[in-house]
Amino acid sequence: MSAWALDGIPEIEPGADLAQLIGDALASDENGCLDGDILVVTSKILSKAEGRIVEASDREAAITAETVRVVATRAYEGGVTRIVENRLGIVGAAAGVDASNTADGTVLLLPIDPDASARALASALRARFGVRLGVIVSDTLGRAWRIGQTDIAIGAAGVHVVDDLRGSTDSQGRPLSVTVPVVADELAGLGDLVKGKASGRPVAVVRGMGRLVTAEVDTPGARTLPRTGPTDMFRLGTDEAYAQGFEAGRAAALAESAQPNGDPAA
Amino acid sequence: MSAWALDGIPEIEPGADLAQLIGDALASDENGCLDGDILVVTSKILSKAEGRIVEASDREAAITAETVRVVATRAYEGGVTRIVENRLGIVGAAAGVDASNTADGTVLLLPIDPDASARALASALRARFGVRLGVIVSDTLGRAWRIGQTDIAIGAAGVHVVDDLRGSTDSQGRPLSVTVPVVADELAGLGDLVKGKASGRPVAVVRGMGRLVTAEVDTPGARTLPRTGPTDMFRLGTDEAYAQGFEAGRAAALAESAQPNGDPAA
Repeated sequence: MSAWALDGIPEIEPGADLAQLIGDALASDENGCLDGDILVVTSKILSKAEGRIVEASDREAAITAETVRVVATRAYEGGVTRIVENRLGIVGAAAGVDASNTADGTVLLLPIDPDASARALASALRARFGVRLGVIVSDTLGRAWRIGQTDIAIGAAGVHVVDDLRGSTDSQGRPLSVTVPVVADELAGLGDLVKGKASGRPVAVVRGMGRLVTAEVDTPGARTLPRTGPTDMFRLGTDEAYAQGFEAGRAAALAESAQPNGDPAA
Repeated sequence: MSAWALDGIPEIEPGADLAQLIGDALASDENGCLDGDILVVTSKILSKAEGRIVEASDREAAITAETVRVVATRAYEGGVTRIVENRLGIVGAAAGVDASNTADGTVLLLPIDPDASARALASALRARFGVRLGVIVSDTLGRAWRIGQTDIAIGAAGVHVVDDLRGSTDSQGRPLSVTVPVVADELAGLGDLVKGKASGRPVAVVRGMGRLVTAEVDTPGARTLPRTGPTDMFRLGTDEAYAQGFEAGRAAALAESAQPNGDPAA
């Protein structure tokens, strides 16, 4: 497997034709574009092309607008950290609203539909180069219980997002049924390693992982990766859940003491 | 950047000299071993070499023994999922006790001290090949709010675990102070992509990321990566925190109603 950051992609302006610009950069790359290549595209350039730019003074309002559900908040000196579920189902800080690598005084929102953007890119580039090609759209996300961030997949097309091991066996011949490696996130992280954060090179090419690239472009995307709902054991922060429980326990006790016989019909 | 899984590492038995075995495999590899290479070593082979093998019938007891703190539990058909903080500070399911790729009827515990194991491996291999070489010890971990697993770093030596961007700037020349890419986790994930889960190839070589490899072997290891304590907003599962809050709220209300004047000294 080999990977590198693609040179020759200009600063992206609203309305830019990304498929054309990335395709031109691929065409100029001495490594060319081969069957089974996977592109890892920083979501930021999709956001810019889509014009998802707002004034920095509206940052807090933008986070609120992008938020589906607040999971936890924590005050710090100078502001409040908000861990929220955003429009895409992704749980993280600030709903993906980002102020790095943007023009002064502005912040970027996440792309409208990164899976759809990945499909459009993959379709256009497959047509241009006549090869099977996968696209991952990456963003930088913090994690519960670990410091810092890694890049993860927020969009995908033409590539398996998980390496489904159901039916395969371990080195002892036993089913590997529990393990579901999320290769899309690992590919996004690998893209971050070769692109870097400050390089101005927003696209990585990964070669040699063609086993993950699919014949069709329209595959289950990154929208399938968030885990929310009944299987989410961390739908609220500890402080938030404790406070809700405290109020409910207090109300239950007060209701009981108002009904000393314990008979709600009394 | 290029990466591949190393051939020629035999099934590891308790007491095996891993530095010798991995060194022999590197020496036989046509790609050789170059300055700046990073090895991503599956923790499982360290566990096997350390004899960290217990009977599968003792799995639940082993999880308990490896647990420092229970974060959340959830019953499912056939058992209980336990999200715990383990000895290494890592929060995840089953404290890292693993039943895949082990002999029938046995499970593996995590290595005793993966950072120390990484230092020993890096020292021995640097001495043998006369190059700067980094070692990451990887394990497979689930995540809050995302399905499946990715590989993360549980041990590291001779390589930066985070890419410290403090002092560097984004493409607009502004400080990238907030972003702390955890390159050790991204390298572990990359290792998983090239090794696969069922390949019997437990070591990956990553070439071309020499900027992350340090002159010294004794560097801040993966033990610095877990985030627990005051900055952990998810120290308990939602249900657990709610239940604790409920009991506290109930007790508070009962205490209040027993002291209707609100004067504890009355």
